[in-house]
Amino acid sequence: MKVKFDKTVKDLKAVWFEDKYVMFIDQRKIPDSIELYKAKDYEDVAYAIETMVVRGAPAIGVAAAYGIAQAALQNKNLDTVFERLKKTRPTAYDLFYALNYMKNNMKHKDPVALAEEYATSIISKCEKIGIHGNELIKQNDRILTHCNAGALAVVDWGTALAPMRVAKNMNKNIFVWVDETRPRLQGARLTSWELLQEDIPHKVIADNVSGSLMYRKQVDMVIVGADRIAKNGDFANKIGTYEKAVLAKENNIPFYVAAPISTIDFSIEKGSQIPIEERDENEVRYIGSCKIVDEMAQVYNPAFDVTPAKYVTGFITEYGIIKPDKIKDLKQ
Amino acid sequence: MKVKFDKTVKDLKAVWFEDKYVMFIDQRKIPDSIELYKAKDYEDVAYAIETMVVRGAPAIGVAAAYGIAQAALQNKNLDTVFERLKKTRPTAYDLFYALNYMKNNMKHKDPVALAEEYATSIISKCEKIGIHGNELIKQNDRILTHCNAGALAVVDWGTALAPMRVAKNMNKNIFVWVDETRPRLQGARLTSWELLQEDIPHKVIADNVSGSLMYRKQVDMVIVGADRIAKNGDFANKIGTYEKAVLAKENNIPFYVAAPISTIDFSIEKGSQIPIEERDENEVRYIGSCKIVDEMAQVYNPAFDVTPAKYVTGFITEYGIIKPDKIKDLKQ
Repeated sequence: MKVKFDKTVKDLKAVWFEDKYVMFIDQRKIPDSIELYKAKDYEDVAYAIETMVVRGAPAIGVAAAYGIAQAALQNKNLDTVFERLKKTRPTAYDLFYALNYMKNNMKHKDPVALAEEYATSIISKCEKIGIHGNELIKQNDRILTHCNAGALAVVDWGTALAPMRVAKNMNKNIFVWVDETRPRLQGARLTSWELLQEDIPHKVIADNVSGSLMYRKQVDMVIVGADRIAKNGDFANKIGTYEKAVLAKENNIPFYVAAPISTIDFSIEKGSQIPIEERDENEVRYIGSCKIVDEMAQVYNPAFDVTPAKYVTGFITEYGIIKPDKIKDLKQ
Repeated sequence: MKVKFDKTVKDLKAVWFEDKYVMFIDQRKIPDSIELYKAKDYEDVAYAIETMVVRGAPAIGVAAAYGIAQAALQNKNLDTVFERLKKTRPTAYDLFYALNYMKNNMKHKDPVALAEEYATSIISKCEKIGIHGNELIKQNDRILTHCNAGALAVVDWGTALAPMRVAKNMNKNIFVWVDETRPRLQGARLTSWELLQEDIPHKVIADNVSGSLMYRKQVDMVIVGADRIAKNGDFANKIGTYEKAVLAKENNIPFYVAAPISTIDFSIEKGSQIPIEERDENEVRYIGSCKIVDEMAQVYNPAFDVTPAKYVTGFITEYGIIKPDKIKDLKQ
């Protein structure tokens, strides 16, 4: 069910629970229009995750937590619901973390209250990520980011964007280079939209431009989000992240990954074990209604890539800045 | 003036002279439609170069040569015409090379014959580039290319695509990864279209994907074209080329640049002296009629980047494979 929405969007969350519905900003429509998506049951929640009404690892986790809570209120068979939601997307670890969190704690607590607690804790962690990350940002820094790891990806604050928001609040003068992030253009559509709301100066660039900017000393640091982090510090994130990491290292530019501990998958040793989602080729072939690749030609469309730990300067977490080789020592 | 065209396109050239007109395939329309653009005078030729009816360094050079020949036939003030055409685009060196070639040789020869000679020599050089480059291609190689350095960029054969066409003609089994090449999508629109015509297996990818493919050992070599080569072997090419070069080196993948000697600017010592064209931000903001960046947000749109010589395995030229440090010893 879709709802037109015309209030101010500045303080809108990516996902919330209201009047028995799981509510979403429909991220497929931004910035063309601000519409809400109202999920009446877990199938609607699954649809919202699969079609990217909601995206971003922490926000997917929160959506799943609300989906479970809603299904519990509706006396659904929860095993079925867990299995359905688990299959929505394969890469982002927060989805599985949130589902386990709900499963393990629901016996003792009202499910809606539990999901709210999960959402609140994620927001609070991201605020801490912002506070820790801000320490890394110097006056006049030019920061490159890839994809969208802002409030829309999290519920509020964001991961990669949280340090920039805190820096802005501290009256630091910063500038952000925003990779447009093909194929789904989350940088051009979502990150730029969020930075406009926050009044943070930025320019959108084709993904091809960032390497050249680094080489020409126009980038002081890179901050990206993460979809899943392995014990050795390898991590999966939006396709293209690996390229930016290699280019940052080649040009001696610090490369940070901002993520809550819930994005770490302690069951896997290294990045090659992370399943990488391959999405529909029409995501590349079409941009809106515009066809850019002939129907006769084939397309390959992986949604994520894996960046080895050696390219990561540090992980910005709710516990502070963590070196890649210390990830394994953290506790969830 | 635009002309609809419905004959077979397989043997169509990118630019030619016919019945007092400089004729172009309108590359802005491919693959949606095959239309011809008919330039009646040098202002039309300038428009064709500026708006990218024709693009690709060697093809721009040939277009300029024909433009001069046409203006000579029309008894125009040639100094004015040279100045006008010189200002159309700043980066591709072949433009200046072709204009100088015409200027230096027109006293002794019919201008149309001279321009035809220039075009024929470029085609012949690119065929040689194909023959030399083919020696580098092994059975079952998976080759990555960026932008379009095919027949459309040259008149015929192409530069980066010439070795692939020769390999195909020699019955080698090859596969090509085609970077879509934002912002203008010359890979998705032009290279894929050319490879379809040549029946060369390929897949189109978002530019963000190629690094991940290299890391996962899905790429055996990279071949790109060039817009201008400095004496020290640094070169300018479509924005994003530098990224691919760094990623190739990081993953021990050979990185070749295919270009005729006319792309070398012997007047400059190094890549930082190459002027880089910045194009209209609407090239990023819109894809066809689809807006992807909010009007409130700013965009930065450089058309080219410079790749340092240290990332180049070799230049594939009409004289064979040349190491970057030997570029300065070549003669035009």
